[in-house]
Amino acid sequence: MTARLDGAPLALRIQAELRREVSDLTGPPPTLVSVHQAAATPFAFYLRQQARRCAEVGIRFQERALGADTTAEELGGLLRELDRAPEVDAVLVEHPLPANLGFRRAVDGLSPWKDVDGVGTSNLGRLAVGAPGQVPAVARAALALAAQYDLPVRGEHVAVVGRSESVGIPLALQLLGRGAGGNATVTVTHSQTPSLARALADCRVIFSCAGRPGLLNRSNVPRGAFIVDVGLTSRPDPDRPGRHRAVGDADAADLDGWAEGISPVPGGVGAVTVPMLLSNVLAARRHRLAEATG
Amino acid sequence: MTARLDGAPLALRIQAELRREVSDLTGPPPTLVSVHQAAATPFAFYLRQQARRCAEVGIRFQERALGADTTAEELGGLLRELDRAPEVDAVLVEHPLPANLGFRRAVDGLSPWKDVDGVGTSNLGRLAVGAPGQVPAVARAALALAAQYDLPVRGEHVAVVGRSESVGIPLALQLLGRGAGGNATVTVTHSQTPSLARALADCRVIFSCAGRPGLLNRSNVPRGAFIVDVGLTSRPDPDRPGRHRAVGDADAADLDGWAEGISPVPGGVGAVTVPMLLSNVLAARRHRLAEATG
Repeated sequence: MTARLDGAPLALRIQAELRREVSDLTGPPPTLVSVHQAAATPFAFYLRQQARRCAEVGIRFQERALGADTTAEELGGLLRELDRAPEVDAVLVEHPLPANLGFRRAVDGLSPWKDVDGVGTSNLGRLAVGAPGQVPAVARAALALAAQYDLPVRGEHVAVVGRSESVGIPLALQLLGRGAGGNATVTVTHSQTPSLARALADCRVIFSCAGRPGLLNRSNVPRGAFIVDVGLTSRPDPDRPGRHRAVGDADAADLDGWAEGISPVPGGVGAVTVPMLLSNVLAARRHRLAEATG
Repeated sequence: MTARLDGAPLALRIQAELRREVSDLTGPPPTLVSVHQAAATPFAFYLRQQARRCAEVGIRFQERALGADTTAEELGGLLRELDRAPEVDAVLVEHPLPANLGFRRAVDGLSPWKDVDGVGTSNLGRLAVGAPGQVPAVARAALALAAQYDLPVRGEHVAVVGRSESVGIPLALQLLGRGAGGNATVTVTHSQTPSLARALADCRVIFSCAGRPGLLNRSNVPRGAFIVDVGLTSRPDPDRPGRHRAVGDADAADLDGWAEGISPVPGGVGAVTVPMLLSNVLAARRHRLAEATG
């Protein structure tokens, strides 16, 4: 029997905590600006979640939709403007964006604490040196979900499947860190890994963020392992013609009775990601308050 | 028969190349400033190497010795001064330094290209996002030595033993990168690894930077593996009473006939590190020239 590592209870708990913390703040509500292209990607669902969760906890949510003809200069200019805006605490930039928009350069124009999803070069450097600032919400969510279910991560040998700069690398750096939740021995695999089965053989917890549906199955997952499924791919929904649904990396049907636990997609890590993002918004606000008074 | 992965031939080749490149430069010679505490650590040997190799290739070498009573403020002030100095191309700060000297904060006061050993937060962030600037010389040296002997690294599963921010982490990030020499699947182990033998079982190349003499032996190294020994520990020399010598992480005697190849300490990675450092000095100079003209 494979356990379902449901993210909803943790998400509710974090949201309730955030609501309390936001209501204790003085001054105007914390403000998150979400910068995105209005396209039918998994990000569109993520965006609706952001708006709803912000409303629940009392964070002001604003959107800046990028037109299809937006240039790298315009994106850079918008982020610099938002960086200077005193009423804005935190800025989230959809990623990946089309390459011509120069995501990296644009996001590096944000101050480290306003870079609320922690994907700027400066925040990733801080993770690498063990002095984290903003940490990508999805990486925080994956670790928090693993902790919630007491998965054997701390001090153990775990795997990160995928090496993206926005998920896999920050997750690996956090897991390796000496702080809470870390101290793990970490194997990072990716599309060029010669044998996934051999690379994963010694790992009891697998954090998968490859974005390849069905990648993990009985042929490569050790029996009794836990999978924290961070994969998120949009696929046509067989039950609702014309609609799409989110799919993870784990082949849950094949792994049923083989894996010890799997976080579902949707409803696992994804459910916790937006609450973690909002927790980062609060951290950004507190950092500004500390700067203003200190 | 275990091959000896000697660093000297590669070091000579890089030095000869550097000498040519430096002689082709216009303007005053590139200048490296080495900031250090004058103590009897392995760094003292490294320092003499720096001076000698700089002289060989035509790089101007300057030292700034920190007194025993130097404060964090003084170190920070010195590095800011060197950062502004137009005649200085590159600054190397000994590390580790005593914790009270605030190495991290001080080195982060250097411009990314002047941070010639690439240990600043900004340079490590650039490695994490796959857009390297200055990369720690010892990590570059380890990879170059592995390439020199055609070790199975690219696209293979390799191990990094040790997670220091100045060696293990940058090495792992480079190995994981999509660029030349990388694309490896990487397992990072450290002092809290539950079973080194199990963690290393699938790896044919092991980069060891733990600084623990004898750590690697037949009990944990898979038969037929290669060890690139980046460990460097100072131990009393049994052959010369009162003197010290450098010792690596591999128990070479125990591994003889078991490992397929081991880089010696001294004379392996260490021999290549200073040439790589000087190659970084040249990169710093070129970056300044490009900024000045572009």
